[in-house]
This record gives sequence, C-alpha cells and structure tokens, in this order.
Amino acid sequence: MKLMRTLSCLLLLLFCSVVQARGTGDLGVIIERADSTVQIVETSGNTSIGRVAGLGDLSHASIVYSRDARFAYVFGRDGGLTKVDILKGEIVGRTLQSGNSIGGAISQDGSLVAVSNYKPGGVKIFDADTLELVVDMPATYGSSAQRSKVIGLVDAPGQKFVFSLWDAGEIWVVDMSDRSSPKVLKFKDIGKNPYDALITPDGRYYIAGLFGEDGMALLDLWNLSAGVKRILPNYGKGEQKLPVYKMPHLEGWAVAGDLAFVPAVGRHEVLVINMQTWQEAGRIKVHGQPIFVMARPDGRHVWVNFAVPNNDTVQIIDSQSLEIIKQLKPGKGVLHMEFEPRGEEIWLSVRDEDRVEVYDTQSFTRKATMPAKKPSGIFFTARAHRIGL
Amino acid sequence: MKLMRTLSCLLLLLFCSVVQARGTGDLGVIIERADSTVQIVETSGNTSIGRVAGLGDLSHASIVYSRDARFAYVFGRDGGLTKVDILKGEIVGRTLQSGNSIGGAISQDGSLVAVSNYKPGGVKIFDADTLELVVDMPATYGSSAQRSKVIGLVDAPGQKFVFSLWDAGEIWVVDMSDRSSPKVLKFKDIGKNPYDALITPDGRYYIAGLFGEDGMALLDLWNLSAGVKRILPNYGKGEQKLPVYKMPHLEGWAVAGDLAFVPAVGRHEVLVINMQTWQEAGRIKVHGQPIFVMARPDGRHVWVNFAVPNNDTVQIIDSQSLEIIKQLKPGKGVLHMEFEPRGEEIWLSVRDEDRVEVYDTQSFTRKATMPAKKPSGIFFTARAHRIGL
Repeated sequence: MKLMRTLSCLLLLLFCSVVQARGTGDLGVIIERADSTVQIVETSGNTSIGRVAGLGDLSHASIVYSRDARFAYVFGRDGGLTKVDILKGEIVGRTLQSGNSIGGAISQDGSLVAVSNYKPGGVKIFDADTLELVVDMPATYGSSAQRSKVIGLVDAPGQKFVFSLWDAGEIWVVDMSDRSSPKVLKFKDIGKNPYDALITPDGRYYIAGLFGEDGMALLDLWNLSAGVKRILPNYGKGEQKLPVYKMPHLEGWAVAGDLAFVPAVGRHEVLVINMQTWQEAGRIKVHGQPIFVMARPDGRHVWVNFAVPNNDTVQIIDSQSLEIIKQLKPGKGVLHMEFEPRGEEIWLSVRDEDRVEVYDTQSFTRKATMPAKKPSGIFFTARAHRIGL
Repeated sequence: MKLMRTLSCLLLLLFCSVVQARGTGDLGVIIERADSTVQIVETSGNTSIGRVAGLGDLSHASIVYSRDARFAYVFGRDGGLTKVDILKGEIVGRTLQSGNSIGGAISQDGSLVAVSNYKPGGVKIFDADTLELVVDMPATYGSSAQRSKVIGLVDAPGQKFVFSLWDAGEIWVVDMSDRSSPKVLKFKDIGKNPYDALITPDGRYYIAGLFGEDGMALLDLWNLSAGVKRILPNYGKGEQKLPVYKMPHLEGWAVAGDLAFVPAVGRHEVLVINMQTWQEAGRIKVHGQPIFVMARPDGRHVWVNFAVPNNDTVQIIDSQSLEIIKQLKPGKGVLHMEFEPRGEEIWLSVRDEDRVEVYDTQSFTRKATMPAKKPSGIFFTARAHRIGL
C-alpha cells in the first residue's frame, strides 16, 4: 500500500510538474561558460542537483537572486538576461536585451533588475517578475549623440542603482523609488575611463577604478552633495606600462574591519587601505597579479587568486598580521571563489581542469570536488540578502 | 481539461502531502506568546502564510534557522526546543530538554544547535537534523557542586559557541570542530553577574553586560590569550539604584561603521561607543528606557524601542548626526523589531494591540498591518546566513 502510494505520488508529481519542496538558503549556481549552461548546487552536502541549458554566451556572466532566493537572473555577455527557476531547474524568462552587456543588479526591494550595456551603451531596467522593460536609459553624453559603455552597475539602499560611463568619465545615481519617474543624478569629470567599480558592503561608498589615469573615484552616497573625490593617487600608477594580463575585479574588494584589501593593477601586490582615511596602509607581496581579493565573511582571512600564468594558485592572507599564511594549488585556471555565507567553506572554480573544489577555510583541507564544464563564476543564494551584490 | 488537471493535482497534493515549492529566502516567523503558536509570514507581499501550534511556553522565545532556511529552531522558556518545518507548517521534532532555558544558537556549519539553560544550569548541544543530544555541558563552577545559570549564548566562526555564567562570573568558549571531543576554554572572574551578551557581526568581539557591577566584559576571539578586558567603566554606573523597568537586550546592539549604539541601563539614553577604542563617544537623549537599539542593515539609521510606560513609541536616530529624525507611535506594547534583510522595510510587534506592522524605512509610512496573537519576537530566514544570530 505504501509502495503504491509512493509510486502514484511520483507519477503525479511528474504529471502535475510539482517540485519537491526544499529550502533555498543553501543553493547556488555555477556558470559553465563553454556550454551555455549553469549548474545548480547545494552547499549543505556539497552536491550538484541539476543543470540548465540554453543561456547564450556566458563569458564574464554574473548572477543576482530574487529576494525569495528561488530565481537566478543570469547576465550573459551577448545581452541575454535569463531568469532561471533554480527549484524547478528551468528557464522561466529570457530576453536578448542588447548586443553586448556586462553585469547587472537587483533593486533593494527585489522588484527591478537592471543590466549595464556596452552596445548600445546604457542601462535597461526590467520588472523582476515579468522581465518587461520598465526603463531604457541610454548613456548619452557630450553632444548627446554619443553613447557610452556602462560598467560597474550596483544596487544601493533607497531603491537606487549606481553605475559608471567608460567613455564619458561619469558616475550616475538613479533613484527608482517611483518606477514611472526615475530620478537621475550625474557626476561628471570623475576621471578617465572608469573600468570597474564596487560598493562597500553597507552600501555607502561607491568606488570606480580608472583605466585612463591613476587613482580611484570615490562617491559617498550618504553625502552626495560633496561630489566625487579622487583617492589613492598612486593606485595603478605606471601600471598601464606594465603588461597587465587581466584587469582585476573591483567587486572582489575585501573589507575586514577598517581595512580594505585591493588587487594592485599589474603588480604582484595586494594593497591595504585604511577606510577611515582612504589612505594606503600597506602592500603585501603575492604570487602573481591578483584578480579577486576576497575576505572570509568574518574578515579574519583574505583569499587571493591570480591572472595567468599564476592562475593555478591561491594565497591566503591573515588580515591582522598582513602575512600570507597558506598557499594552495587547486589546479589550472582558478577563475572564481565564493564563500559559503557564514564562511566555513569556500568554493573554487578550476576552469582548465573542469572541476569545482570545496575547501574547509579553517583546516584548508579539500572537502569535496565535483565535475563542471569550464566553470567560472560561482554564486550562492545568500547574495539575495546582501546590499550591492 | 485544464480545470480537471488543476483539480486532480490539488487533490493529489493533499493525498501525497507534497508542499507547493517556493523559495524560503523571504520567509519569517513571529512568536505568538499567549497561544504557544508561531505565525509564518513572507516579506515579498507582506502576508501571513500559516500558523503552527503546540510550542509550549514562548515567553522570551527566540529562533535560529537551518542553513537551507527551511527549518526554524524555536527556543521556549520552558526548556522546549522545537524544530518547525516552515514550508510544510508543521513540527518535525521537539524535546523538552531542561526545566527553564533562555535562547540558543546554531553552529557555523548548521550541524549543531545549542541551548542555554537556567535550570539545571548549563548548555546542551543537539544534532540539528535529529535533535539527538550530542553534548551535555553542566555549568559547574567553584567546588564543582554548584551549577550556574547560562546566558548570552552565541555562535562564533570556527564551529564555536560562546556563553556566560551568571552565578559564576565566567565566559566559556567551546570549540565543537570535533563533536565527539568538545574543547572548552574558561575565562574566570570576568565580573559579577553577566546578564546578557552579544557578538559583533563579524564574530570577533564577545561582550557581556554585568548586572552586579559597572562596565562590560570584552573578549576578543581573535586574541584569546589577551583574556577578558573591562570596557566602558561607566556603563550601568549607579543605574542599579534607578528603577529599571526591563533590562535592555544586548543582542540588539547596533553597529554602524565604527560606532556601536547601545541601550543605557535605566536611563533615557542611547550610548554611542567608538569600536576602535571601546570608549564612549556620545549619549543621545531618547523617549524612554531603550530596550532594542537596532541599526538598519546599511547603518544609516538606528531604530529604538522602549520599556513601559513608553513602549508605544519608536524613535529613529541618524547615525551620522546622532540626532533623532523621526518618532512613530505604532501602538501599545512595541516589543520587537526586525528589518528585512536589505533594510527596505521593518516589522514591528505591537503586542497589546494584537498586530504586526510593516513600515517603509525610507518614507516611514505604514505598508501593511496584520493580526497576530500577542506577538513578540520576529525572525526572518536571512538570519540563517549571519554570524552570531
């Protein structure tokens, strides 16, 4: 009788396409670039639970999550914005919203998803439920006939989006509190060619790296009237003349207490910045050109990966002594790292060896390894609850 | 045909007791003290989605969540530890583990749940899946025949639990990395009668308030060998002689940038502490004796509620100007406040009027109101991903 019941229930589950209920707090998505797929994983047992195909060009792809931690919005390089139901493992919406795009963000209340586009340059904002276009915001500048590429798009408290214009050297703050009438505040002459940006975990400071000159552009969102300031005048200095294998990711900035840990450009160094004064507080020699510099959620350690030819290595810095306390060789092509929300484990994409590794962050032992097709970004659902991610 | 299918699916859902799949990132639980029930709510549409009964004495009850954000562990005053499946809305485990208890914590990896007990005094640690007892740790002290009440139990990184012994004046740090052999580090003579404690959001500093003398006891978990230090020598000074209507909750400490906002004991003040120096940095006059002092997740505002006879009022402090910028009168008996994870809304329990209110934290307008039976604590599932909550 029990078997009958179980069998009939299984059949009916299929027929009714009801998904077995489960919590979504321990789920995550791994970008599999070569196959236009994402792999869905869970971090309680460290296992793979599914794969979704048909996501287009996923180079440099990133993900944000709905506030219920059920839907992943995947931003593809080809302008594709795809909404994936990670419980059912299926695509529930997809729009090819531009020719070439780079990342996105979800509004504080989860109702809007914004995408930053290279071509045509601008930001498009969509309804998070339906993926209907809500606002098309061309990044026009100068004579207004020109359109700039947009980079460094993040969400900020107060239903805001903040982003930078590569060609124009501007930072825009868009207030979407009233979605039918967006308010745009533009900061001009912030520096030449902002190439990436970040927002601090509290959503207060927006900082853009400049490709065309030294230093970084800082906007204090609590004091907008103070305008954009230049900080870290030596950041990037002279590095444009060095061979830079890959520009570092600024969204990887690690904040531990009062210190921020920042990848140097071109040099084999991690910079330490005092966030009270925005002055450089030290430089740490590392194994290669750093790409991601990420603090463990408790801020005690900082993990660093590197550009080619050193991308088989990961180093771990003690945020108190500023010394390297551990070096790991997970394999060739360590592209991305993601901590589990409370920091007990970290997941690493080892692209060239088609696998993902899970390490214990206390003992540095390997806890799990699983196959993945040319994995790059790894994104856990706890991001749904964080500002600026 | 479609109707037939829908109907048969509904029937089968009942028959197979399959729950409709949904994300759990936007769920929460409200303690309904008078009825031994909890109400399950969701914060995307601000609605109630269920109620679970049979939870025993819920005065002063609190909740932690499983790492998948599906199960709520409810710590009752009568020693009851109840595991509630918030997707199915049913109790899946319950143990009456002591005669009188006060709060609990879940380990960093989610595998262990600890409860602090008054009677008999000590901590019991359970398997989070099965609720089987893993460790029984009596809080013995002195001649070892005596057992102390335990308060201020929190989780800390590295699979640790930290708690204080009211009668003994001790702080214990328990490392559960190897669950079959817990390692206990005891700090003695930390001060007289610690009555509550907190851990900073990064899991570094554990701070206990002292009922029996002035000041607070600080333990830096990154530097355990430095031992426990006394800070804020004036905290509580002379207040034992004032009529204290209710001791403030230390777990409500608000951290905004470098400043911590702390309820004064007895006085109508919120204390501001510089966390770099652990010195007092200011005092803000408020409407009554503060109970919870909570920072909005971005740290821009600090919300304060009060003891009787002022518990109909909430005040909001600007963390930059240190001025009160808004006062609300939600109703009689505002017992608890919980921000949605990214801070756009806050939920308030209005116990004496049997309702819960939801406010927009930007405009301070009321967004929703819903009935609840003598509501007290409100806990959202995003807590699953935070250290020390």
